[in-house]
Amino acid sequence: MTDSSDVLITEVGPRDGLQNEAAPVSSAAKVAFVEALVRAGVRQIEVTSFVHPSRVPAMADAEAVYAGVRREPGVRYLALTPNERGYERATAAGCDAVAVFTAASEDFTRANIGMSIDESLERFRAISREAQRDGVAVRGYVSTVFACPFAGPIAPEAVLRVVEPMLEGGCYEVSLGDTIGIGTPADVSRLLDLLLTRVPADKLALHLHDTWGMAAANTLRGLDHGIRSFDSSAGGLGGCPYAPGATGNAATEDLVHMLHALGHDTGLDVEAVALAADAIAGSLDHALVGRAHQAILARRRRLARAQGAA
Amino acid sequence: MTDSSDVLITEVGPRDGLQNEAAPVSSAAKVAFVEALVRAGVRQIEVTSFVHPSRVPAMADAEAVYAGVRREPGVRYLALTPNERGYERATAAGCDAVAVFTAASEDFTRANIGMSIDESLERFRAISREAQRDGVAVRGYVSTVFACPFAGPIAPEAVLRVVEPMLEGGCYEVSLGDTIGIGTPADVSRLLDLLLTRVPADKLALHLHDTWGMAAANTLRGLDHGIRSFDSSAGGLGGCPYAPGATGNAATEDLVHMLHALGHDTGLDVEAVALAADAIAGSLDHALVGRAHQAILARRRRLARAQGAA
Repeated sequence: MTDSSDVLITEVGPRDGLQNEAAPVSSAAKVAFVEALVRAGVRQIEVTSFVHPSRVPAMADAEAVYAGVRREPGVRYLALTPNERGYERATAAGCDAVAVFTAASEDFTRANIGMSIDESLERFRAISREAQRDGVAVRGYVSTVFACPFAGPIAPEAVLRVVEPMLEGGCYEVSLGDTIGIGTPADVSRLLDLLLTRVPADKLALHLHDTWGMAAANTLRGLDHGIRSFDSSAGGLGGCPYAPGATGNAATEDLVHMLHALGHDTGLDVEAVALAADAIAGSLDHALVGRAHQAILARRRRLARAQGAA
Repeated sequence: MTDSSDVLITEVGPRDGLQNEAAPVSSAAKVAFVEALVRAGVRQIEVTSFVHPSRVPAMADAEAVYAGVRREPGVRYLALTPNERGYERATAAGCDAVAVFTAASEDFTRANIGMSIDESLERFRAISREAQRDGVAVRGYVSTVFACPFAGPIAPEAVLRVVEPMLEGGCYEVSLGDTIGIGTPADVSRLLDLLLTRVPADKLALHLHDTWGMAAANTLRGLDHGIRSFDSSAGGLGGCPYAPGATGNAATEDLVHMLHALGHDTGLDVEAVALAADAIAGSLDHALVGRAHQAILARRRRLARAQGAA
């Protein structure tokens, strides 16, 4: 974060956003996307995922992308590492910050990574031990914190049961993912009311989706509870391939528009974020659906027309 | 509202939603839309606008639509009446609830209705006197409560200056419109902090747009301040023809999804609202963009496929 920033935006567009795209995006375009987002002020960013290429073909160029990015000081370039093999690939590519994940739902963990929650925590501890040895920072992700596409509603206690071991195991922060985007401000309050009795607010992030239009409202409720770290995706890129019907990460432009109006500082230039997303949209087979993203680009077109007419 | 309802949703899809549509929508389809929304539980609804047909061609069939709707007890069927001529047309068509409007911005009022705010308030008083004589209920609308597409930010004092005379002049409720959808929860708080020192919360409604993704977050902040009346549009239909770049009313499904989760009762069946919007979408030349609307329809398709496969 810049000196005056009080809210950290973790940009997930290049990984969570692009991993489900049907159209192939070149490694060069991905690298340019990451670098443009960092120029826009992003200080924590998911660059890619060292997952098996057969699992997520769009991330098969993880080495090329991670190594291709010109690194700036003060920026954390995260790579998702689903297992020890992924961790080895990531560190071999020069990565010094990895993201590991599990879920609050047994059914989702089984469907997503083929193991139980306890087994996934064991795997996390193995990666975490290596990371501590290597001086690599570890960020934890917990999926399905409000509801699971298979098991339905998830109790806050089930989330706490995985958040605590992840923090004890060395994660500097745990991001709470509303994987299917169905959570509401009521769910945010219910979850945080429990977690914050056991975990400091500055160890938690919210990873929200806009599937049901709740991304900004849930962010607002998170802010009300003292959360100051939010994951979002430029232009609203992305979804989750293993969660049926999950579309639409919280859009970075929406959140930054709101955060700045509320007097928070993210260090981001929202217009530059929208332009970075617009550039990567040229590689996709569909338009980006972020609300503020669309509004910013429409305003730019109007201004350009007005200047052309003057 | 039904006995247990504590939040009133005013459905604006048939008027505010459809008035900008390029594709002609038949009067029969509009009537069916209104009736389907009422069957979904809507208790206050904008049916049409008695505006001059040259101004808003999509509303040229106001008489046919208003007279065509089978009226149900306990439902307020509003018609927008921009002037005394519109009021006469509306009451001749059997209308017993009209909506009158002005704005908090001189520039917007001048551009939208060709007069000053004071002149628009005079016109309102003339209609209001007739309405009181006729036993017709009057709802007030104030546009551009946060910002004006021409003049920029609007001070809360400018809103209070029109809200008070509208309530004194007999409006049972005044709806505060974020015409260009750029307002944030900070703006909602700032405005309500002032208005609620002078006006009871139950005399105010919020008419929000989702242009910048803030509809649900702004609704949440309105709820936090005690507001219990919100305007929204099924499927997120609509915008404003006189406000450049203004697209996307708050979607009814988004708000109802959130309100019910927060423990409020709207009396609405959100699935039935989505189906009503889906039916009218068949008359349009584009898909509806409401987030929860899309999520509900996607879920229905998944369930139908699953049942087909079983």
